[in-house]
Amino acid sequence: MDDKEAGSLDYDRCINEPFLEVLEGLDNKKAGKYEAIKWILVFAIGVSTGLTGLFVDFFVRLFTQLKFKLVGQSVEECSENGCLALSLLELLALNMVFIFVSSVLVLIEPVAAGSGIPEIKSYLNGVKIPGIVRLRTYICKVTGVLFAVAGGLFVGKEGPMIHSGAIIGAGLPQFQSITFKKIRFHFPYFRSDRDKRDFVSAGAAAGVAAAFGAPIGGTLFSLEEGSSFWNQALTWKVLFCSMSATFTLNFFRSGINFNKWGSFQLPGLLNFGEFKCVDGDKACHLWTAVDLAFFVLMGVAGGLLGALFNCINKRLAKYRMRNVHPKARFIRVLESLLVCMVTTLVIFVASVALGECRDLVSTNNNTSAQGSVNEEVNSTIRHFFCYNNTYNDMATLFFNPQEVAIHQLFHQNATFSPVTLSLFFVLYFFLSCWTYGVSVPSGLFVPSLLCGASLGRLVANVLKINFHMQIYSGTFALIGAAAFLGGVVRMTISLTVILIESTNEITYGLPIMITLMVAKWTGDFFNKGIYDIHIHLKGVPLLEWETEVEMDKLTASDIMEPNLTYVYPHTRIQSLVSILRTTVYHAFPVVTENRDNEKEFMKGNILISNNIKFKKTSVLTRAGEQRRRCQSMKSYPSSELRNVCDEQVVVEPAEEGQDILQQMLERRHVLYPNLYPDQSPSEEWTMEERFRPLTFHGLILRSQLVNLLIRGVCYAENQSIVGIITRHNLTHEFLVAKLRQHYITI
Amino acid sequence: MDDKEAGSLDYDRCINEPFLEVLEGLDNKKAGKYEAIKWILVFAIGVSTGLTGLFVDFFVRLFTQLKFKLVGQSVEECSENGCLALSLLELLALNMVFIFVSSVLVLIEPVAAGSGIPEIKSYLNGVKIPGIVRLRTYICKVTGVLFAVAGGLFVGKEGPMIHSGAIIGAGLPQFQSITFKKIRFHFPYFRSDRDKRDFVSAGAAAGVAAAFGAPIGGTLFSLEEGSSFWNQALTWKVLFCSMSATFTLNFFRSGINFNKWGSFQLPGLLNFGEFKCVDGDKACHLWTAVDLAFFVLMGVAGGLLGALFNCINKRLAKYRMRNVHPKARFIRVLESLLVCMVTTLVIFVASVALGECRDLVSTNNNTSAQGSVNEEVNSTIRHFFCYNNTYNDMATLFFNPQEVAIHQLFHQNATFSPVTLSLFFVLYFFLSCWTYGVSVPSGLFVPSLLCGASLGRLVANVLKINFHMQIYSGTFALIGAAAFLGGVVRMTISLTVILIESTNEITYGLPIMITLMVAKWTGDFFNKGIYDIHIHLKGVPLLEWETEVEMDKLTASDIMEPNLTYVYPHTRIQSLVSILRTTVYHAFPVVTENRDNEKEFMKGNILISNNIKFKKTSVLTRAGEQRRRCQSMKSYPSSELRNVCDEQVVVEPAEEGQDILQQMLERRHVLYPNLYPDQSPSEEWTMEERFRPLTFHGLILRSQLVNLLIRGVCYAENQSIVGIITRHNLTHEFLVAKLRQHYITI
Repeated sequence: MDDKEAGSLDYDRCINEPFLEVLEGLDNKKAGKYEAIKWILVFAIGVSTGLTGLFVDFFVRLFTQLKFKLVGQSVEECSENGCLALSLLELLALNMVFIFVSSVLVLIEPVAAGSGIPEIKSYLNGVKIPGIVRLRTYICKVTGVLFAVAGGLFVGKEGPMIHSGAIIGAGLPQFQSITFKKIRFHFPYFRSDRDKRDFVSAGAAAGVAAAFGAPIGGTLFSLEEGSSFWNQALTWKVLFCSMSATFTLNFFRSGINFNKWGSFQLPGLLNFGEFKCVDGDKACHLWTAVDLAFFVLMGVAGGLLGALFNCINKRLAKYRMRNVHPKARFIRVLESLLVCMVTTLVIFVASVALGECRDLVSTNNNTSAQGSVNEEVNSTIRHFFCYNNTYNDMATLFFNPQEVAIHQLFHQNATFSPVTLSLFFVLYFFLSCWTYGVSVPSGLFVPSLLCGASLGRLVANVLKINFHMQIYSGTFALIGAAAFLGGVVRMTISLTVILIESTNEITYGLPIMITLMVAKWTGDFFNKGIYDIHIHLKGVPLLEWETEVEMDKLTASDIMEPNLTYVYPHTRIQSLVSILRTTVYHAFPVVTENRDNEKEFMKGNILISNNIKFKKTSVLTRAGEQRRRCQSMKSYPSSELRNVCDEQVVVEPAEEGQDILQQMLERRHVLYPNLYPDQSPSEEWTMEERFRPLTFHGLILRSQLVNLLIRGVCYAENQSIVGIITRHNLTHEFLVAKLRQHYITI
Repeated sequence: MDDKEAGSLDYDRCINEPFLEVLEGLDNKKAGKYEAIKWILVFAIGVSTGLTGLFVDFFVRLFTQLKFKLVGQSVEECSENGCLALSLLELLALNMVFIFVSSVLVLIEPVAAGSGIPEIKSYLNGVKIPGIVRLRTYICKVTGVLFAVAGGLFVGKEGPMIHSGAIIGAGLPQFQSITFKKIRFHFPYFRSDRDKRDFVSAGAAAGVAAAFGAPIGGTLFSLEEGSSFWNQALTWKVLFCSMSATFTLNFFRSGINFNKWGSFQLPGLLNFGEFKCVDGDKACHLWTAVDLAFFVLMGVAGGLLGALFNCINKRLAKYRMRNVHPKARFIRVLESLLVCMVTTLVIFVASVALGECRDLVSTNNNTSAQGSVNEEVNSTIRHFFCYNNTYNDMATLFFNPQEVAIHQLFHQNATFSPVTLSLFFVLYFFLSCWTYGVSVPSGLFVPSLLCGASLGRLVANVLKINFHMQIYSGTFALIGAAAFLGGVVRMTISLTVILIESTNEITYGLPIMITLMVAKWTGDFFNKGIYDIHIHLKGVPLLEWETEVEMDKLTASDIMEPNLTYVYPHTRIQSLVSILRTTVYHAFPVVTENRDNEKEFMKGNILISNNIKFKKTSVLTRAGEQRRRCQSMKSYPSSELRNVCDEQVVVEPAEEGQDILQQMLERRHVLYPNLYPDQSPSEEWTMEERFRPLTFHGLILRSQLVNLLIRGVCYAENQSIVGIITRHNLTHEFLVAKLRQHYITI
């Protein structure tokens, strides 16, 4: 007791607000009461995410329309004059400029590359990749994706929307920015890991909601990827946040595009249009029970193709990692420009040379059952070199924004030739596979959907023309899109709901779900989903839902790290700094020494380095493999640093001030061996036995609390510490490696 | 160790399969691998639930059509002949017969009364009300609700669908029945509490899905009511189960009603029809931003009216409990018949005498914006005493099945007079309030929706005619329905999604959500949701999401039960039986005595009586307040009973065989005081301090595991037991009572 009081005194002296905020979440209890503020904040997050979507959409539309108008005119003119090369150059120049801008933005902030979904998944799982929720990343991502899409690459803007939403969720409730130091209001709430993660969940959900007009899907996405336990109040807020995002976007887009302010007609950035039979056509069904058999087969095909896609993409990513030196990032810019050039060439050549002229008003009687022709769909048809009421099917697909092409495949009555569809699929498949991983912000949803839709439409064509079946082509295109996307990303519930909401047709629930299930199972037979592959490549120790089978065969002592760094209850900041600099852990057992000079647990505390917020002042950070920030410490006024470093810090209070929940968790770890009070824990126990409680928590706490929990589990024997087990020691790869080693030893 | 082996030997001798199955979940590990079987089972549950829905729907339609046809004809004839009394008698006779059948079925199985949602909620929260998932209950419920709805009571068939689904979920994977002993296959899997609860979740979700055509809403319902932690694999199965239910029902109903086999056109038992503007009417919006303000006000009104409804209903229920002796249940049958008579009279008199004749084709120009008139809607119009292309608006609402009346309010172009709507609302409000609680199976969703829809339509009428606003009446009716339903049931996420799915229009997401939020908040200001009220009246110690504020002010010793019954490691079944007969707990600390003759924890075990399945053979059960089943023990062959009772049971193995997860939890409780290793737990700690870990678990484990967890928390001090805390000690009422007592003492 005496200790404690002395400690807290020392401690009080130590607090140097901007420099050292040991007591993260100190005012958490207070903040817990600010329920109303939380509601306002999630609303603000939703609205901001919606506005971000609006911004991206507006400029993408502007640039794309401008581009296609310019080049389209030029092509129409040149088809007579024979100056097609000029049109190509025009297109090429525009695209290259756009992609260059996008790529340079990624050069500024490397984590803005890609879709951001793997990073957000990691974040919600409990692993912070440095810079992932910074304002700078947000700016680079949003602007970058805008130019990447406008530049005609086969990328979507939906994935980056999710990342943007997550950043808004992380940043907005803080009312301050690390990137821009001047943005700093006094708003000391919601600083705990858990609150932040809740807001990030909400932001990510809002991102999905804005991207697909799918508020429920967004909520389920953040549950699937991020949540550990079902928290009714939180989920309700997340849903509200998603709704706000969808309807903000909807409101402004309806106003801007249709000049119908106050109405709500354009739900998400991507929506699939209305699937509808022509009124009065009694024979028309969107789908029948018989079609389900084909959907299952398409699911299998989607799973296989998705697995192939992932496999190729993984090899490419590995190749890039091996051959591009981290310092020579400009090579990545060159690669982007190369991809851009190839894509532009393919688009242009395919549109001009490979298309087929098809009748615009379908002469096929069967297709009359295909529903009301969307006006928008017809207006985006391309006539390149096709006259007399015919149109160029390849150009219609390639020489339009991707969303329009998806609409064409879903709703265009007029047919596409099988050759065109096959060619389109093959070109698109390989190009989009190459593109995902290039150094621009890039989503994967739209390219995958488009790829799959062309395949689905191809199946529909074959069934209709060769087998004379009464089917609705749009449904097959949709199912094809779902199958391929499912095969690539392997998401389950959330993807089902997102697709149902995007079609705004509950009737498609069963076919979409069955297709996705089959696609996932088929794909999982070969490899993991693309996001998991990229997470793995990044070396993030993600904890999965299920425990690894290897755990059965390994003992705790097999996987633990025996060389430990200890922290004593009274220690100097300076030594903490040096410990942080020389070790790779986040957590350190706090020990005293007993009579026999053995290290003993001191009150079962674990010091979590993040709580001593060196991070905040860029002195030291440990997340990821980054060490570079350590450099910046030198530039910090050394006087101030020394000031603090000389103080003696009592480590203990780190526990005092924290969210009690956090305390419980930490205590619980350390107490972990006590969970077997009747048996002294033996090192020979299998991992299965040993890690039951961890397994249990791994399930419950995956994400929201997991990084608190798995930062370090001290493995102790009779109160004396023998090793530490972190989440790195629990990854599949580590376990496999250890298992191999284990067998060799035996 | 010696102990243990001896114990397990004794134990093996003790197992008398049908009589005593101590090792519930013994083969759980094995069963964990039967993933494929689980998928097949959830599919089967979904299909069975769908078929149940089909069965109910088919016969309700048959009976109702028959009834309305007969009586309708009679009225039309009698309106000339003046023999209306005869028509009334006809209607009365038919309704009384139906209700009598329904009521007698409830007499056979009392738990079949009501909607079953409170009971299922309790079940998923961890409290089993006896007989709630029996096959007999299923039969009584399904048949009962069919006759209750056909009998013209103001009850819905949707709530009972959820209960039926849950029973199917509980029963089907067991391949045996307690009601019908002959149904018994050897299928010894999925016997653990957790597996059962998972299947019940799936079944309940399937029930919602079939009732409303809302598979996603159903999944969220079972998450909201039942789940504690988000389990991706389980949720995915639940969604599949829901989809199977919806589409089974859809398939057969489309086939039977439209003779379109293979198509899917009628999603749920209740669906809201298509909200749609007339093509080409550019000025028509389903809703605009301005309308949102009215929706908020309607939400407030819905919350207030819902609170009133709940308040009246609660008083009625209390009155019934006080004045109807449990043995005089036939009085409840008489009450049902009385309600039936009054309802029939009201329906008849209102239809015949109080209606207004309105023009069928609306002459009001504004209403032309109201979307395509549904053919079905027009065909169900009633003309009682109205000629010349007019119709009787009151009769149209009252003299039709409730689903039709909802359709009328949502989609009928022709107007209803404000007087009719107000009168309809008032009559419906009080009658349905009286009806919910009467001894028939009865849902609350449809009556609430209808009640609210009439109010919403009234608001629309006023806004349109008195304020000349350009609004879509159907939307207002829908929002009114949502507001009132939300005010009554106070569900959050799941209800939002259910309503969105029922309208099959994602555009309604925001208005529905905002209305429900406002209605819930307003209502919560006055009382709880109707289901929680009934749970409370039943005395179920439900554990809420949030902890009670009273916990701050009470210490553990304030609320614990100090008089304990102990169990010693080696004990006879006979003494266990007598312990179970004389105590009210489910859990007993297993103790040894130490040198000072103090009771010490023996390996920290808690014996959970349910694991020793006396329950199964009706020897003893403890759930709820039921003692009557104890009687049935006598009828059991006493020889067999004595056989077992003489055996010495080693209590310990109960832990050995169980699901390890369960073990962990149990151990954890007992270890609970150890969580504060540095401070000896003091009885003077506030509940807040003391129950942090419990709070924490209360959050995570609410439901799926909570009944394991909160069956009993032994409160121990220095290894010696001083009291027990069960979930009964944590209910709001108990805490309030204790707090009052506490202050008086001080």
